[in-house]
Amino acid sequence: MSEVPAKIQTWQMVKPGELVQTEIDMPEIKPGEVCVKIAGCGICHTDLGYFYDGVPTVNEPPLTLGHEISGTVIAGESDLLGKNVIIPAVMPCYECAICKAGRGNRCLFQKMPGNSLGMYGGFSSHIVVPARGLCVIDDVKDIPLSHYAVIADAGTTPFQAAVRAQLENPYFPDGDLVVVIGAGGGVGTYMTQIAKALGARVVVAVDVDEEKLQRTLQFGADRAINVMGKTSKEVKAELKAFAKEVGVPHNFGWKIFECSGSKPGQALGLDLLSFIGKLIVVGFNMVKHEYMISRLMAFDAEIIGTWGCHPQYYPRVLELVQDGKVAIEPFLETRPMSSIRESFAEVHAKPLPRRIVLEPDF
Amino acid sequence: MSEVPAKIQTWQMVKPGELVQTEIDMPEIKPGEVCVKIAGCGICHTDLGYFYDGVPTVNEPPLTLGHEISGTVIAGESDLLGKNVIIPAVMPCYECAICKAGRGNRCLFQKMPGNSLGMYGGFSSHIVVPARGLCVIDDVKDIPLSHYAVIADAGTTPFQAAVRAQLENPYFPDGDLVVVIGAGGGVGTYMTQIAKALGARVVVAVDVDEEKLQRTLQFGADRAINVMGKTSKEVKAELKAFAKEVGVPHNFGWKIFECSGSKPGQALGLDLLSFIGKLIVVGFNMVKHEYMISRLMAFDAEIIGTWGCHPQYYPRVLELVQDGKVAIEPFLETRPMSSIRESFAEVHAKPLPRRIVLEPDF
Repeated sequence: MSEVPAKIQTWQMVKPGELVQTEIDMPEIKPGEVCVKIAGCGICHTDLGYFYDGVPTVNEPPLTLGHEISGTVIAGESDLLGKNVIIPAVMPCYECAICKAGRGNRCLFQKMPGNSLGMYGGFSSHIVVPARGLCVIDDVKDIPLSHYAVIADAGTTPFQAAVRAQLENPYFPDGDLVVVIGAGGGVGTYMTQIAKALGARVVVAVDVDEEKLQRTLQFGADRAINVMGKTSKEVKAELKAFAKEVGVPHNFGWKIFECSGSKPGQALGLDLLSFIGKLIVVGFNMVKHEYMISRLMAFDAEIIGTWGCHPQYYPRVLELVQDGKVAIEPFLETRPMSSIRESFAEVHAKPLPRRIVLEPDF
Repeated sequence: MSEVPAKIQTWQMVKPGELVQTEIDMPEIKPGEVCVKIAGCGICHTDLGYFYDGVPTVNEPPLTLGHEISGTVIAGESDLLGKNVIIPAVMPCYECAICKAGRGNRCLFQKMPGNSLGMYGGFSSHIVVPARGLCVIDDVKDIPLSHYAVIADAGTTPFQAAVRAQLENPYFPDGDLVVVIGAGGGVGTYMTQIAKALGARVVVAVDVDEEKLQRTLQFGADRAINVMGKTSKEVKAELKAFAKEVGVPHNFGWKIFECSGSKPGQALGLDLLSFIGKLIVVGFNMVKHEYMISRLMAFDAEIIGTWGCHPQYYPRVLELVQDGKVAIEPFLETRPMSSIRESFAEVHAKPLPRRIVLEPDF
């Protein structure tokens, strides 16, 4: 097993827009903590928000970004020594009233690497994190350890969304009716797959990118609707025609996952919401919408916001991935961590078809 | 037992704005149906919406309004003969996919007296209704039968709202934190009482009517906040001070029931919604609100619309009333049905402190 070095090698955001390769002291590893040698860290749009768009991190810079991390425990709690793990993107305190209410994913004392875990983040050689909630990968099987990084956040946020929408307690005996808006995106691809894996009767993928949409048909989607330039009314008509074709109701019972975080995506979600439906807000956007909330009353419907994923669900997602029900390999690529500046710029300029996982090469 | 007359005496809405006393043929009582001799029928704001405000009824006029009905079964299904009953305001079909999904309160084939049950409604001497779902009152105890009419709709809609908000599965061991907006109103008074009866730790009553607000303190509310002329920020500060005083969290876990159906009430509800909170939309208003739905994501919160009440919950509400946990007597008054024109006009001009139940006097 690797020794714990005195210094952590890292790519530090000294201020928004500026990344510097440096080294920082390895912090003390306290009881209940472990030191993880990082195998890979995914680049998430949240990182770009902090870096480019003025979204403030909880801990002020200088700090290291990165919260989609996989790696190997090299020190700390003895029962985890030598284990390969995924570090949950948000780690609850497990002690507060919110945690005790079973809603630890929204714990107000939660720690998130690359945001609220001091100056420490995933674009580093090592990180010290709480041991509780780490997702152990007993057997990496034929997937490189670094690839498992995408399960943190990108792969698990949709699982939490599915829990919130009660996909495992479907309205209909044959399973739920699901629409995923932004289905081609980094979170949407997993949302689509997870919805299908959890038993959805039909999954309709909605996006504006034809290439990404076509890909969803191999990964969970039963129908792809390209909404580019279409009104909500036109999209509704397509959804209705599809519903008729497959023999499911068109005007009630749909669970709509808004993963695009775009203004038109959110607006479409609100327009599609109907009787006993649920709109699950997974993507983020600062825009305000005009909405008659009494429609929710008339429809007996809900709008549900969902934040992150409780560590308790990580093993479920890991299982779906290892059972081949949720594919991660087609949706990621690895690069050396030294490409971080160019990789950030590239993803910021245009969302890529695959998530970039950076592998430490200090 | 009364005989079934050949004619039903009734106050018919021949067109919106015009009520005429007349008689109509007693319809055939089919298998699965019963004829109820009406003891009382409450005047609901929904009736006024149909009568004054251009809200269309499902069945076009001429029809008789009225959907809060209690009475005695005088013909039809033999196991119900002679029983005193409350007629649920909405009666699901029990057969469709929505009913089978457990959401019969929003059944699209549901029948509502005074709206979608042909021309028949509660402001009559008799009514023929489906037997299934009727709420039997085995012993009226010391409450006149006509008074039970208010349980249909006014008393049960809040119960369904409480079910939707999972008040019986509270966030905290000591019970939930509840705000009722419009707590002094016809639905709000029951919402306040039911929230307390189902174990809420604290219930904060919000209204603009000081007299009605003070009354809530005797019926379920722990604190009354008169929001007349106050900003949301000021209301939040009062709520925070109260939370501190009683030792409960002020910024998470609140379940907010919007019962006023007013624009400022709904806006306040949206503003109060916070971490893991729920805003339950009970009142109706056509206004659109500007809202950033991503706040729901950041808060892991929900907006839940709720429609009517499934007949399965009526016995629960009846029990709460008969156990003295939910008072109805202080919130109603009875009048002869022949006062219907003046009573409609009076309620339309100004919401009264007590719901009017009309007793047939044909």
